[in-house]
Amino acid sequence: MSPEYAVIGKSVPRIDSPVKATGEAKYFSDMTMPGLLIASLVRSPHPHARIVNIDSRAAERLPGVKAVITGKDTLGVKIGPLRSSRDRQVICLDKVRFIGDCVAAVAAVDADIAEEAAELVKVDYELLPAVFDPEEALKQDAPKLHDHARDNISMRRYWNLGDVDKGFKEADYVREDNFTTAPNMHGYLETDGCIAQCDIDGKYTLWVTTQVPFYLRRDLAMVLDIPYTRVRVIKVHVGGGFGGKTELFDFHLAAAVLARRTGHPVKYTQTKREEFLAGLRRIPTRIWLKTGVKKDGTIMAQESKILTDGGAYTSVGPVTIYNHGLAHMLPYRVPNFRHQALRVYTNNPVSGPKRGHGQIQVRFAIESQLDMIAEKLGIDATDIRLKNALRPGDVTLSKLRIGTSGLQDAILTCRQLSGWVQKRGQRRGVRGVGMGCGGFACGPRTAALSDSSAIIKINEDGGAVVLSGASDIGQGINTLLAQITAEVLGLTVGDVTVVAADTDTTPYDPGTYGSRVTFYAGNACKRAAEQVRGILAGVAAQKLEVKPEDLEFRNRWVFARKAPDRRVSFAELVRTAQVSDSKGVIFGSATYYPDGVEWPDPQNSYVGNISGAYSFSAQVAEVEVDAETGHYKLARMTLGDDCGYPLNPMSAEGQVEGSVSNGQGELMYEDIVTKAGEVRNPGYTDYKMPRVQDTPQMHTVHIETNDPNGPYGAKEVGEGFIVSTTGAISCALHDATGVWVKDLPITAEKLFWAMKQAKEKK
Amino acid sequence: MSPEYAVIGKSVPRIDSPVKATGEAKYFSDMTMPGLLIASLVRSPHPHARIVNIDSRAAERLPGVKAVITGKDTLGVKIGPLRSSRDRQVICLDKVRFIGDCVAAVAAVDADIAEEAAELVKVDYELLPAVFDPEEALKQDAPKLHDHARDNISMRRYWNLGDVDKGFKEADYVREDNFTTAPNMHGYLETDGCIAQCDIDGKYTLWVTTQVPFYLRRDLAMVLDIPYTRVRVIKVHVGGGFGGKTELFDFHLAAAVLARRTGHPVKYTQTKREEFLAGLRRIPTRIWLKTGVKKDGTIMAQESKILTDGGAYTSVGPVTIYNHGLAHMLPYRVPNFRHQALRVYTNNPVSGPKRGHGQIQVRFAIESQLDMIAEKLGIDATDIRLKNALRPGDVTLSKLRIGTSGLQDAILTCRQLSGWVQKRGQRRGVRGVGMGCGGFACGPRTAALSDSSAIIKINEDGGAVVLSGASDIGQGINTLLAQITAEVLGLTVGDVTVVAADTDTTPYDPGTYGSRVTFYAGNACKRAAEQVRGILAGVAAQKLEVKPEDLEFRNRWVFARKAPDRRVSFAELVRTAQVSDSKGVIFGSATYYPDGVEWPDPQNSYVGNISGAYSFSAQVAEVEVDAETGHYKLARMTLGDDCGYPLNPMSAEGQVEGSVSNGQGELMYEDIVTKAGEVRNPGYTDYKMPRVQDTPQMHTVHIETNDPNGPYGAKEVGEGFIVSTTGAISCALHDATGVWVKDLPITAEKLFWAMKQAKEKK
Repeated sequence: MSPEYAVIGKSVPRIDSPVKATGEAKYFSDMTMPGLLIASLVRSPHPHARIVNIDSRAAERLPGVKAVITGKDTLGVKIGPLRSSRDRQVICLDKVRFIGDCVAAVAAVDADIAEEAAELVKVDYELLPAVFDPEEALKQDAPKLHDHARDNISMRRYWNLGDVDKGFKEADYVREDNFTTAPNMHGYLETDGCIAQCDIDGKYTLWVTTQVPFYLRRDLAMVLDIPYTRVRVIKVHVGGGFGGKTELFDFHLAAAVLARRTGHPVKYTQTKREEFLAGLRRIPTRIWLKTGVKKDGTIMAQESKILTDGGAYTSVGPVTIYNHGLAHMLPYRVPNFRHQALRVYTNNPVSGPKRGHGQIQVRFAIESQLDMIAEKLGIDATDIRLKNALRPGDVTLSKLRIGTSGLQDAILTCRQLSGWVQKRGQRRGVRGVGMGCGGFACGPRTAALSDSSAIIKINEDGGAVVLSGASDIGQGINTLLAQITAEVLGLTVGDVTVVAADTDTTPYDPGTYGSRVTFYAGNACKRAAEQVRGILAGVAAQKLEVKPEDLEFRNRWVFARKAPDRRVSFAELVRTAQVSDSKGVIFGSATYYPDGVEWPDPQNSYVGNISGAYSFSAQVAEVEVDAETGHYKLARMTLGDDCGYPLNPMSAEGQVEGSVSNGQGELMYEDIVTKAGEVRNPGYTDYKMPRVQDTPQMHTVHIETNDPNGPYGAKEVGEGFIVSTTGAISCALHDATGVWVKDLPITAEKLFWAMKQAKEKK
Repeated sequence: MSPEYAVIGKSVPRIDSPVKATGEAKYFSDMTMPGLLIASLVRSPHPHARIVNIDSRAAERLPGVKAVITGKDTLGVKIGPLRSSRDRQVICLDKVRFIGDCVAAVAAVDADIAEEAAELVKVDYELLPAVFDPEEALKQDAPKLHDHARDNISMRRYWNLGDVDKGFKEADYVREDNFTTAPNMHGYLETDGCIAQCDIDGKYTLWVTTQVPFYLRRDLAMVLDIPYTRVRVIKVHVGGGFGGKTELFDFHLAAAVLARRTGHPVKYTQTKREEFLAGLRRIPTRIWLKTGVKKDGTIMAQESKILTDGGAYTSVGPVTIYNHGLAHMLPYRVPNFRHQALRVYTNNPVSGPKRGHGQIQVRFAIESQLDMIAEKLGIDATDIRLKNALRPGDVTLSKLRIGTSGLQDAILTCRQLSGWVQKRGQRRGVRGVGMGCGGFACGPRTAALSDSSAIIKINEDGGAVVLSGASDIGQGINTLLAQITAEVLGLTVGDVTVVAADTDTTPYDPGTYGSRVTFYAGNACKRAAEQVRGILAGVAAQKLEVKPEDLEFRNRWVFARKAPDRRVSFAELVRTAQVSDSKGVIFGSATYYPDGVEWPDPQNSYVGNISGAYSFSAQVAEVEVDAETGHYKLARMTLGDDCGYPLNPMSAEGQVEGSVSNGQGELMYEDIVTKAGEVRNPGYTDYKMPRVQDTPQMHTVHIETNDPNGPYGAKEVGEGFIVSTTGAISCALHDATGVWVKDLPITAEKLFWAMKQAKEKK
């Protein structure tokens, strides 16, 4: 299956590994500049209040303080990452809506003074009644957060595809279950922040740890009401993103305004506590799920109602809520589907995107329920998945066009490698195995400009420079771009420099989210490299008297495929081309957007093929449970990953393992405990995540499907893999204990009580 | 003549004026970084010596010193800006050849410690006999500087075109004169220097005040023996260049090696004294010149022998020595020409390029001699120039193809505006006027890659970003690139961001020298912008149902030329194009090199058309002389400038005035006084340059010839104008005093003695 590549498909070490491993890499917090000031933000201690007055005189008098700003120093533009979610003044003018909402900011010569000054800013609040539960928020007499939403509904979506009632009628078995999932954090080590600078021309430059430099430029230009040419956003090394660093936050605007006000560069570094308060969290959900199947396990219909707590603002809600529906369309064939999702405003922290965005919650519910159904019908859990799996060529109810799918292969592979047959159904309260499956889009079309683009320029000595807007946030896209360029041009990875993610110097790319980057930016880069190869092939053809299409580029040589001694070195060829009058400096540029892809139609149950390809995954989790205490351990994961073709197997495996670790945390431990809008565990002392010693053995198998739309056959692997992890563990726990816990996270305590209750029932 | 442009031809303020005027602009010396070290260089106090031993132990022991390196820590690669001038190890290994030659370098935590450490480096020298006069150096028993040049000849060139002997035979009047010119400095306010950094991957990044970032990358890669991908050179704001910052110097290599050695960024800032010792200087010349004319002033033949003191190394000598010959080909018709030039090694500081490179010396001689001839024949000095002036369509003896020439127009304009007829020939020892003329190539073809290139990308909101390798060193090319882009796309200058002169992020450009930048980089930028306009015109044509060629782009609108209400805003058009499947992100890229231009053939008297166009200038200088003391004042300059078409008249005028000021200094004051290889006036206290109060009234008239090869008709204006200044002043002094001083600079003292001698002769 896998073609003979020179660089692609090899486990090339990340090109940024040396600087990161040695600590040499400069993150924004390492950076300094002459005259750098430090910013601190003043945040609301109340979940809901009107701002009556802000007195900043005491703060301004503190020696070392250079400026204090409030919402009145901004234009008060309401912002949100999508056109339909612009409901937030990131620095509040009139009202605060959650504990942590920003009301003012100070800049001072050092962090101590800045913090002290922030405390000296006196804010008079008129307290307002608050609401913290989405069901409560829907009641007629509930406190209202926003004028534009008197019902506190932030977003509402319906899907109705096929004939659901008929489907349930034709089913042999129908069941309904309720599931809940908790809010959780992205858990990156590097907290958020930036350095902002504003020159005398009013041009802002931001050095940011972000996933979306071009969106940041767009949104900063919007809130400052200036053209894009006046904003430059430079992504520096990012210490983790996972969806959390995907929009304009209060501190970006505050640092920009403070920089303009003072004429100095201003740095803001979020504390871990602030991140828990004011960062984005995984949206907590309440899911009612109904599924009907034939006796043989064939799914006939599915219906769900999902109520989510969006917190005080909508953030990327339009995508989140679409993804709730989308999660039913992959990875199984569902012939009839009805769905209602409601995102509700509350005075809790804001919910936003996180790896497996909007889908992981639903997949947990569906995978758990599918095992319940299989058990009831006496079908093996892997067989029911095999039966319903989407096949190549399938078109889903919502018109997703499945080009390639390795799901059945992944299920079979995992079943075999995990020792499924021997281990499944022992039910000794000690060990259990469970399977979860998932599918994921390789980059959705959003309402915003979704294209990736790339420019490649060739150095005079034959090296290549890739200019790409893509954002490497640790997932390794820069290395892949180097590999792709090297493969096309017959160079080595070391011959390629990647310049990326700077809105002034690199071409447009929407950013790192939705598992789009390899697919989009990789394809753009491949096309640009092919353009360069085309130019050079023309020159080489003349020089070697060979047809351009008979030339091969490999190992820094260009030669006739059938007569390899007719050859010229790449460097020599570049020199020849550059001094020829017709060519000159060699470069290529390309933009990529997949054909036949559309933003799903909201008027028609979101029907539309949102992506150029879909990845699939199957996972078998093996757990060890202490039946007396409920403590359990995730012992082993067998991972079948259809990412099309792994351009860098080591890197792909890292993504797979990272997804599993994230999903494990989400299923086993992670929960932002909030009381009356106040986060009670705002730090890693009390917020539990998996550590090295909690990490299971993992065995990854790449299922190669070589998608024709992907660059060298590749599909996504960065995000999709997480959606099948929670289901696999949930099902394994049931296999071990016979009980279901339908409320994430499944802590030892919950499992203990569930087992106790089950025992008492018997 | 001048077309109706919206942005071109307007005196747009420089886009970098605000940051420069407020002091906000960051020059390399303003920059700081975590862990920055300061470098100091150890320079030879001897003009010629063998390095016996270097003991750096005392320096290394000094607290705060991080590293000491010598030539042995380098590969000892011999370097030079051209292939035929690679005769210099910038950090000496065996031998020093002038006072200031670098032998070692230290890096320390601050400048004081670095300087102290440099003094502690103990170098044992074996002194060698030295030679300081080029004629002495040619003698058989002279000390030899280089093994490869046992005759101390660095470069030797002959031209022989037409039949010179016949020409002189047919002449009615022939005369011979000897002229000499002094070495002088560029006189930039910002001394040279850089910051170098080397990461763990061995990638070097240099922030440099330079005119030639791509050449620096090339040469640093060569001396470090690494590929270009391992070197990134970023030009920062430059505080003056004028030819002085055009090659790899000792400190670039030293900073790079120290950065690699220490793992820290290393900054080196040259002192003004070091600049006089170790920087490049204007090459001093001895010129023997013979010209034969008909009675009516028509030049029949010219012959010259030029002996120059190149100093210890060759630098850009191959170009300098070519330019000596070239200076005879412009701006007059010369039908027969013979020429010999000799560049000699001496133990003086190194001679390199400076504004008017290699030509200003010759032009001073020719213009002075032409006035002597005119006086002898009783022809007005302006008439003899008119008669011999190159006309459009002329092809010179050396095959320079003169497309456009406004020289006759410039002469007539200056004659009229200066009040020539009233003022000339009064000879009262008080006032005098003189004319000088010149011509200049718009960028020569050199042996190296001469193309400029540009990439333009369009922001999502309709702004434009130009990526250009061109180096703005204060001449304002960034502003011109913004104007050109704005003109092509119908935008304003503020809509355009220019990113320039960074070898990683911007496309290739050889740099700022030879007055090539507007012509080459401007044309590349124009082509790239036209490519963008072509893409957008296609989209607009479809949208507006108009043929693409009938569309006009102006004032941020695109409309049908004949039906302006059929229109779409540029921003709206960009949005339409970007979301169309066929276009996506919009960019254009282009490379420019003029057709039919060649590196002149050294085998055939340097015959060849070296440039795509030639600019011309005429100047009338008016001087006021104190006949008793010889003190004189340059009162007024009338300046006729054929730069084709002034893209930015204010900026062009600035270049003209800057050239005049430079030329004035060169004629009146500037002289590096060297005794036995030691510079005796290494600083602005003793080295005299024109100050504001010395600056004449200047009146500039742009003669528009609209060269078809230039971008919007533009030819060069940055450098060529200087070559006619010295002649004009020299002739004006003669007009006032009746004496000739043939030895630059014409100081008051020299003039006094010349007048005294003339008086005594009578």
